[in-house]
Amino acid sequence: MIHMTRIFVLNPNSSLQTTQAMEAGARGVIERLPGVTVEFDTLAEGPAAIETQADVEQAAFPVLARLRNRQADASVIGCFSDPGLHLCRSELGHPVIGIGEAAYAQAVGFGVPFGIVSIVQASLGRHLRQVRSLGYKDFLAGDRSLDLGVAGLADPDRAMTRLIEVGSALRDRDGAQVLILGCASMGVYRPAVEAELGLPVIDPVQAAIVRAHALLVLGYPGQIT
Amino acid sequence: MIHMTRIFVLNPNSSLQTTQAMEAGARGVIERLPGVTVEFDTLAEGPAAIETQADVEQAAFPVLARLRNRQADASVIGCFSDPGLHLCRSELGHPVIGIGEAAYAQAVGFGVPFGIVSIVQASLGRHLRQVRSLGYKDFLAGDRSLDLGVAGLADPDRAMTRLIEVGSALRDRDGAQVLILGCASMGVYRPAVEAELGLPVIDPVQAAIVRAHALLVLGYPGQIT
Amino acid sequence: MIHMTRIFVLNPNSSLQTTQAMEAGARGVIERLPGVTVEFDTLAEGPAAIETQADVEQAAFPVLARLRNRQADASVIGCFSDPGLHLCRSELGHPVIGIGEAAYAQAVGFGVPFGIVSIVQASLGRHLRQVRSLGYKDFLAGDRSLDLGVAGLADPDRAMTRLIEVGSALRDRDGAQVLILGCASMGVYRPAVEAELGLPVIDPVQAAIVRAHALLVLGYPGQIT
Amino acid sequence: MIHMTRIFVLNPNSSLQTTQAMEAGARGVIERLPGVTVEFDTLAEGPAAIETQADVEQAAFPVLARLRNRQADASVIGCFSDPGLHLCRSELGHPVIGIGEAAYAQAVGFGVPFGIVSIVQASLGRHLRQVRSLGYKDFLAGDRSLDLGVAGLADPDRAMTRLIEVGSALRDRDGAQVLILGCASMGVYRPAVEAELGLPVIDPVQAAIVRAHALLVLGYPGQIT
Amino acid sequence: MIHMTRIFVLNPNSSLQTTQAMEAGARGVIERLPGVTVEFDTLAEGPAAIETQADVEQAAFPVLARLRNRQADASVIGCFSDPGLHLCRSELGHPVIGIGEAAYAQAVGFGVPFGIVSIVQASLGRHLRQVRSLGYKDFLAGDRSLDLGVAGLADPDRAMTRLIEVGSALRDRDGAQVLILGCASMGVYRPAVEAELGLPVIDPVQAAIVRAHALLVLGYPGQIT
Amino acid sequence: MIHMTRIFVLNPNSSLQTTQAMEAGARGVIERLPGVTVEFDTLAEGPAAIETQADVEQAAFPVLARLRNRQADASVIGCFSDPGLHLCRSELGHPVIGIGEAAYAQAVGFGVPFGIVSIVQASLGRHLRQVRSLGYKDFLAGDRSLDLGVAGLADPDRAMTRLIEVGSALRDRDGAQVLILGCASMGVYRPAVEAELGLPVIDPVQAAIVRAHALLVLGYPGQIT
Repeated sequence: MIHMTRIFVLNPNSSLQTTQAMEAGARGVIERLPGVTVEFDTLAEGPAAIETQADVEQAAFPVLARLRNRQADASVIGCFSDPGLHLCRSELGHPVIGIGEAAYAQAVGFGVPFGIVSIVQASLGRHLRQVRSLGYKDFLAGDRSLDLGVAGLADPDRAMTRLIEVGSALRDRDGAQVLILGCASMGVYRPAVEAELGLPVIDPVQAAIVRAHALLVLGYPGQIT
Repeated sequence: MIHMTRIFVLNPNSSLQTTQAMEAGARGVIERLPGVTVEFDTLAEGPAAIETQADVEQAAFPVLARLRNRQADASVIGCFSDPGLHLCRSELGHPVIGIGEAAYAQAVGFGVPFGIVSIVQASLGRHLRQVRSLGYKDFLAGDRSLDLGVAGLADPDRAMTRLIEVGSALRDRDGAQVLILGCASMGVYRPAVEAELGLPVIDPVQAAIVRAHALLVLGYPGQIT
Repeated sequence: MIHMTRIFVLNPNSSLQTTQAMEAGARGVIERLPGVTVEFDTLAEGPAAIETQADVEQAAFPVLARLRNRQADASVIGCFSDPGLHLCRSELGHPVIGIGEAAYAQAVGFGVPFGIVSIVQASLGRHLRQVRSLGYKDFLAGDRSLDLGVAGLADPDRAMTRLIEVGSALRDRDGAQVLILGCASMGVYRPAVEAELGLPVIDPVQAAIVRAHALLVLGYPGQIT
Repeated sequence: MIHMTRIFVLNPNSSLQTTQAMEAGARGVIERLPGVTVEFDTLAEGPAAIETQADVEQAAFPVLARLRNRQADASVIGCFSDPGLHLCRSELGHPVIGIGEAAYAQAVGFGVPFGIVSIVQASLGRHLRQVRSLGYKDFLAGDRSLDLGVAGLADPDRAMTRLIEVGSALRDRDGAQVLILGCASMGVYRPAVEAELGLPVIDPVQAAIVRAHALLVLGYPGQIT
Repeated sequence: MIHMTRIFVLNPNSSLQTTQAMEAGARGVIERLPGVTVEFDTLAEGPAAIETQADVEQAAFPVLARLRNRQADASVIGCFSDPGLHLCRSELGHPVIGIGEAAYAQAVGFGVPFGIVSIVQASLGRHLRQVRSLGYKDFLAGDRSLDLGVAGLADPDRAMTRLIEVGSALRDRDGAQVLILGCASMGVYRPAVEAELGLPVIDPVQAAIVRAHALLVLGYPGQIT
Repeated sequence: MIHMTRIFVLNPNSSLQTTQAMEAGARGVIERLPGVTVEFDTLAEGPAAIETQADVEQAAFPVLARLRNRQADASVIGCFSDPGLHLCRSELGHPVIGIGEAAYAQAVGFGVPFGIVSIVQASLGRHLRQVRSLGYKDFLAGDRSLDLGVAGLADPDRAMTRLIEVGSALRDRDGAQVLILGCASMGVYRPAVEAELGLPVIDPVQAAIVRAHALLVLGYPGQIT
């Protein structure tokens, strides 16, 4: 591996803003990985946002096509619902990481209960299925949603206020000792939330990039589950 | 519900033989459901067999389209990997049942450890994820595959011999007290396997039809998970 | 099975009022089962109500005697504590279903956490033992009692108010996604509670009748646990 | 407690031989409890042996009557199926201990997986329900039966041979680190089995006497489950 | 065992006050153990209090040296963090009991969820590791700390008020049905807390003495975990 | 972090051979971490090998002293029993990683059952406590020891033969889908074992280095458990 290690992060929705937020949130982490190039891209043909089960499933084959073309050393699917993850893993010859499963693995690696800060109530069932399917249910302290709407999320002050409210509930009522930001584009809030709540906070994009890198360094062909 | 209750069972692969085997395996059960019409159909545009993760995911939208057009009181997706299940459930207004989840629910309802008789080794990981995502992992005694190949499966004597071998291992080594036939087209073997092994055997197609009917009779809008 | 399928539901206490409430709560469900006759009866020699452990155990042999005489295709023991269940199952040659275990199996079949609305605090320990003995403990979100007394239960307004209070606590504080009415005679409240709380509600009598029917249709000799 | 502490151990079957075996097996333990009188008695009106579910349930009220009359400081029900346990506990004002639950609690107190050496296959389901209802399922390594018949059990050589066979399987195949003798009358074999297998062995009668004593010394009104 | 049974209880901190409180809390229990001599001692070279992880680990070898010299029939390490427990168990030929593990085993033996009343927030992580390492996590309802400080703990009125507050939260919010006093020197409060809260309360020193005695009476070489 | 990231790996036994084996096993991994300096050192004052509980506990304070002096960005304790881990973590201001817990976290991150290849039978109890205390018990498929002795381990052919035997048993009888080499000095065997058995194999030293690096890159102050 004399060449630079290349990790490709695909945002499976069509929003450039999301891709930029992912990149901004992960910047500090990437700077601490010399020898690694992380490339972000946007799935122009994807939905504007991935919210429904149909959005998740519709993204699978376009994501596969894009990852196949890119030929990175490892690929990251940049949506917390991990669209197309098992498909890509079964079809491609390099490690493919979903940011959802990477965040969960990071949390469980800490050995303590974790809480999920979700965007909308509607995704809680999907998260529970995912956490269970990885065998991590015993570590799930709670999953609470921001319920802010597009306008609310776009307003940093309202977003931050609500992150602290929800994070506090996960910590104080549900017993979470680590928090997961259940979304691809909130990494920029990590430092402020950690400072305010006194808990480690996991940004799924950061976690997935570091996990992809770790699998490459350790020489594993990819995730197993 | 003055009209006949209509349950639609879709085989998501293109094999008429599979559809016929499903129907043959479920015949006895359907005869004991007066007032219920069960219609079987084949997804001509589906793959010849659903084996890979790509097969599973490719079937999702065609299955949805077919179920939507059929307008039954309840729909059954007739493949043990439940292709398109969460998609259909989120998009359609009537109960949609996967034969996989129906078989698992039937087994767990017995309150004892169950074993899965799978067709091929490659599906074991998918089964584990599915069993876990339903929260039923503690009831899974074991999952062993027939590994017979197409020719072997087509030969009733070899199939039966191997069913008994695998079923015996699940019962005697893994502690299963109920067996699930992990496939849509083996219901016809149920009586012989039960007689030979002395355990209740679950045919997923039978289980799904009865579950669909039960949800309708009880007036639930569908499965929740 | 050319003859009508006969399911016998025995109320093991001596209260005709309870039997009538069971029947009223299950009427709609029974109407959707053509070809099935459901007969209700009252155990005149039973206690006025089954509340203590002594009540539960005293009912066992009288229940057995009555079920033995009735010669139905399947029998249902109509008390949430399932008095005499294991005795009857071991002695009789047809499926015997307890309404408690049927309600739990129905809830677990949904794959999500369930809450129990109990009548009195004193039964919570018995419920926990029962849920555990079926292996369903991981699905139990909470068990809260109405604590209404006889007069309160007899007053539909007070009963309904309290059902909503307790059901809300189970949903909002304990995380239940399905509710079980932990008593034989509250089925009539099911539609109103479902409408008010937005969750599926399980009436144990309805669940047991449908479960008995399902076991007959599928040709299983009975429950295994 | 100036008076001697009195612990009453009732054999709920009518076999004097069983009572004598219980007493013989517990003698060494009792001698190490100065200030404690342990009285054994036989339920003459009980069945010759407690094997079926009907035997278990029929014993409940006679056991209650006998324990009530005896007025000991604590009572022990001397059958591994704990007949009448919850009934006696709910009706009597002093600690009542089942030898089954006492053996399980002793095993779980060691914090390692335990195996059960059962007499007959038919009791395995009952054991599983009991272990689960106490919440101890995660500690159950296995349950295997001697399947010796009356004659075989009566022959010490055959019994010992079979105890070692079954105990070895529990240790080597199932991973048990402690063994429970699943019967009231095998305590005399404990030293030989421990010597042969190198594992601690729990005699339920010994465990129950010591547990009854411990609850009295600690001043707890009894078991809670 | 013609001689008196000798149980040695070592307080691994240097505070005579703590040793006296342990003795006072256990007095009633010891009086009910005729034939048993319980000797208490203080580890003069130990820290003033055992609070940090360094305190716990520094105590290990001094505790071992003291237990080795004392040559009791069984030894009890009198600190809820069980300092030196696994070391002493592996090095000494007689049963060694930690008061922490003894309290947990007593609680789990009741078969219901338990709550821990801890002294300081900082020990919660250590408790969780200990509860988990014994396999008892499913029984842990909650762990809440008094957060009183030295002055507060020394004032019986403030201590009692706070014990009731914390115990009530464990009972009512966390569902504990038994409470453990997570400290060596609060046994004197047991009767008052039990009377106020209506739950059995476990004093770890009492539990350990009775457990040590039980292991000797039953003839086990010691704990296994 | 303009400076090179420094990770310090301390072998807590006094064997230079062990340190060299650790380094040799991790070499390939370290080469794939540009910008990272990994320094290995030997605890001259440590025991020749860490086998007993006394060895583990005696190493704690010397390990702490050495890590404190070294002032690396992150420290790794290079023994599978993680001696002094919680002590160092509570006393030092930088991330401290035990190779045991790192290996377990890596395995659990794969979401499938893992098996442990241990050196000696005597360490199995310690491993179980460690796996449980991290909350990972549900992922433990089995733990089997090589039982080779010093001479056997030193002979690469015998070691490899035995690794394959034990690994095969873990895979085929226990259901492990990942293997952990339960020792610091067997990393050099990883490629051959993976090739032979077809499973990913985890070398704890490699896993710990990569985990230490990941925690630094992600900016977490260290492990939480």
